[in-house]
Amino acid sequence: MKAKPHGPIPEGFDADTEGRLLIGGRSVSAWVEEAGETPVFLYIADRLRQRVARLRSAMPERLRLNYAVKANPFPPLLETMRELVDGFDIASGGELAMCEAANITADRISFAGPGKRDAELAAAITAGVTLNCESEGEVERALSIGSEIGRKPRIALRVNPEFELRGSGMKMGGGAKPFGIDAARVPELARYLGAQPCDWRGLHVFTGSQALDQAAIIETQGNVLDLAAEICTTAGVGLPSLNMGGGFGVPYFHGDEALDIERVGEALRERFAHLPDVLAETEFHIELGRYLVAEAGIYCCRIVDRKESHGEIFLVTDGGLHHQLAASGNFGTVVRRNYPIAIADSFAAEPEERVNVVGCLCTPLDRLGDAVILPTAREGDIVVLFCAGAYGATASPAAFLGRGPAKELLV
Amino acid sequence: MKAKPHGPIPEGFDADTEGRLLIGGRSVSAWVEEAGETPVFLYIADRLRQRVARLRSAMPERLRLNYAVKANPFPPLLETMRELVDGFDIASGGELAMCEAANITADRISFAGPGKRDAELAAAITAGVTLNCESEGEVERALSIGSEIGRKPRIALRVNPEFELRGSGMKMGGGAKPFGIDAARVPELARYLGAQPCDWRGLHVFTGSQALDQAAIIETQGNVLDLAAEICTTAGVGLPSLNMGGGFGVPYFHGDEALDIERVGEALRERFAHLPDVLAETEFHIELGRYLVAEAGIYCCRIVDRKESHGEIFLVTDGGLHHQLAASGNFGTVVRRNYPIAIADSFAAEPEERVNVVGCLCTPLDRLGDAVILPTAREGDIVVLFCAGAYGATASPAAFLGRGPAKELLV
Repeated sequence: MKAKPHGPIPEGFDADTEGRLLIGGRSVSAWVEEAGETPVFLYIADRLRQRVARLRSAMPERLRLNYAVKANPFPPLLETMRELVDGFDIASGGELAMCEAANITADRISFAGPGKRDAELAAAITAGVTLNCESEGEVERALSIGSEIGRKPRIALRVNPEFELRGSGMKMGGGAKPFGIDAARVPELARYLGAQPCDWRGLHVFTGSQALDQAAIIETQGNVLDLAAEICTTAGVGLPSLNMGGGFGVPYFHGDEALDIERVGEALRERFAHLPDVLAETEFHIELGRYLVAEAGIYCCRIVDRKESHGEIFLVTDGGLHHQLAASGNFGTVVRRNYPIAIADSFAAEPEERVNVVGCLCTPLDRLGDAVILPTAREGDIVVLFCAGAYGATASPAAFLGRGPAKELLV
Repeated sequence: MKAKPHGPIPEGFDADTEGRLLIGGRSVSAWVEEAGETPVFLYIADRLRQRVARLRSAMPERLRLNYAVKANPFPPLLETMRELVDGFDIASGGELAMCEAANITADRISFAGPGKRDAELAAAITAGVTLNCESEGEVERALSIGSEIGRKPRIALRVNPEFELRGSGMKMGGGAKPFGIDAARVPELARYLGAQPCDWRGLHVFTGSQALDQAAIIETQGNVLDLAAEICTTAGVGLPSLNMGGGFGVPYFHGDEALDIERVGEALRERFAHLPDVLAETEFHIELGRYLVAEAGIYCCRIVDRKESHGEIFLVTDGGLHHQLAASGNFGTVVRRNYPIAIADSFAAEPEERVNVVGCLCTPLDRLGDAVILPTAREGDIVVLFCAGAYGATASPAAFLGRGPAKELLV
């Protein structure tokens, strides 16, 4: 079997003089010791702060920054984000409750998602959260629930645009989609809302996620601004707020390169300098989940067995796809590729043997590193998977094989 | 978009005179009403009993039947299985605790899985569970823990055979694998165990799962018997017990046909009639999870929105991949295909429109039915996914997007 490369280790991870991976001046092994168990997710607060700060400095000042809670709703992380970003995008009543528990006020929250139940709409309207409505039917339900409970719903419309975000890992616009309302039908609906007992909040356009091509993002942001202006002009309505979506990707795999956000910011600054009148007073948001938190998290599991089969070495860990479904190649990817991976206490050591890192689940799907070259590792050593801060703990089947969730720590 | 077929509805599901899907004489809608919420998994005890009874009548009397708990560990279902099958295969300490809670005695339990931790080994040895050891290292750990706690571990060896189960959905034997010990190394290890303070229980050979080709299963069972005889003869040890693995598949997709278990049983009966001396006293087991429980379960979710985009109809449900990851095409499959699906109250109605059934999660991965032809359905209608009894609730990321687990009911 040929060796397969793993993804690039995110910038800013260093080793101590003994070659051990450090986090905030302490070795990962020491953090794991403190956690008291493996597997454990470590989310690094400093990296969250640095990420947001760098993004802010790259983007126009006028642009507001939303955090998509679905990427990682771990309560202490959400509380940290409360101080860092402007808005929060939620996708369920459960995420609304998490935001409320983290003392995030409703005026900072907007709620998208195609399958909002009546009870979720009622909770959001009662709280004063902005609804990004996904269909004419949902608009009617929101209006009717609002009138029942005597609260004007705050309503924005999610638009399914004709264009897509080129090169995005998941396309959420262009053609027939379950998300949003086809752009051609939006002006009439926006006009209709003007005569209804609701608070018109504007538009939401989310075209894709996990894009690493800045030119594609720049093009799409331009298209979103044009579309929003066109819709509001046609409808004859104002645009209090425009959520331009996200789509900023993170390098997971060999060959992936980090997004040039400075270029994206420059292009957006240029666009903001020449806005049409209808957008002159608009509040602009981007909505990022993965981009803000993925690289701030690592997943640590322990090698419980080192074994050989037909000349191949297997490092069997106590972690697995029940915590790291996407890293195992079973979530949203067709071809499995290796996430960035390392041995914690040999972080600075030379890679020297080809191994297969597997999880503890009794299924061949449970692979964390396939034919990767790593420093020699033994039972008891800690394996680290990077880019584990987003779509890890909650996007994995924690109850599978009776294993249960991993511990999570904000450090 | 062309219509895509859905998988075959399992045999034995009928409608009442109004065309509504029935379970035990009551409509699914009535069961859902009783459950008080959607989504809900309904597991049908009668179907479990019928399945096991039919399998028993097809298989040689001498063959013992094990249930692989990982397929569905829902406590009331596990309690039902306690009365139906002979043995239980577990894959973690968590599953051991579930078996204990269901009053399943340790002498009926065996524990396989490549990543057993020391604490799990200790719990299993203390309880008297048989360990299917997956490596030389694990054998040593088991012996050392046994001597520490003063209990002789019951040890079987899991063999990684040279052959595989042809046509299986997941291959777990043949070539370099994290599972078991390469067959060539097993005789020496078996001999070594003869001189150790342990209770020698025999061999475990699991080559694959989800096979629908009876000829392949027959061939593999023959290979397993040959291999077991060869190992024990070479090692000069007896074979108290042989777990021959499972691999019996279930039709999920269009074109899949049910396994001819009568033919498998006949072939096995023939083999059992001509066993070599070394296997004369052996207790034979097969280990089935999916085959026993998949078709006994349905997943019911409710349509919360019916919408159109670019001429396509989308039925947006309150269910999704957070409960039905495999049905969404995101677990162990490369190409997404439709599971069997129906509208509960129009079960007998003519299919008449092409729709996309999606979940409520705000991700394009959340598809339950892609371009399927169904009877016309409206908001409030119940969508039923079949083959939901195995690898559903616990093999899906229930916490994703803050949605939480589905209700489960044994009916």
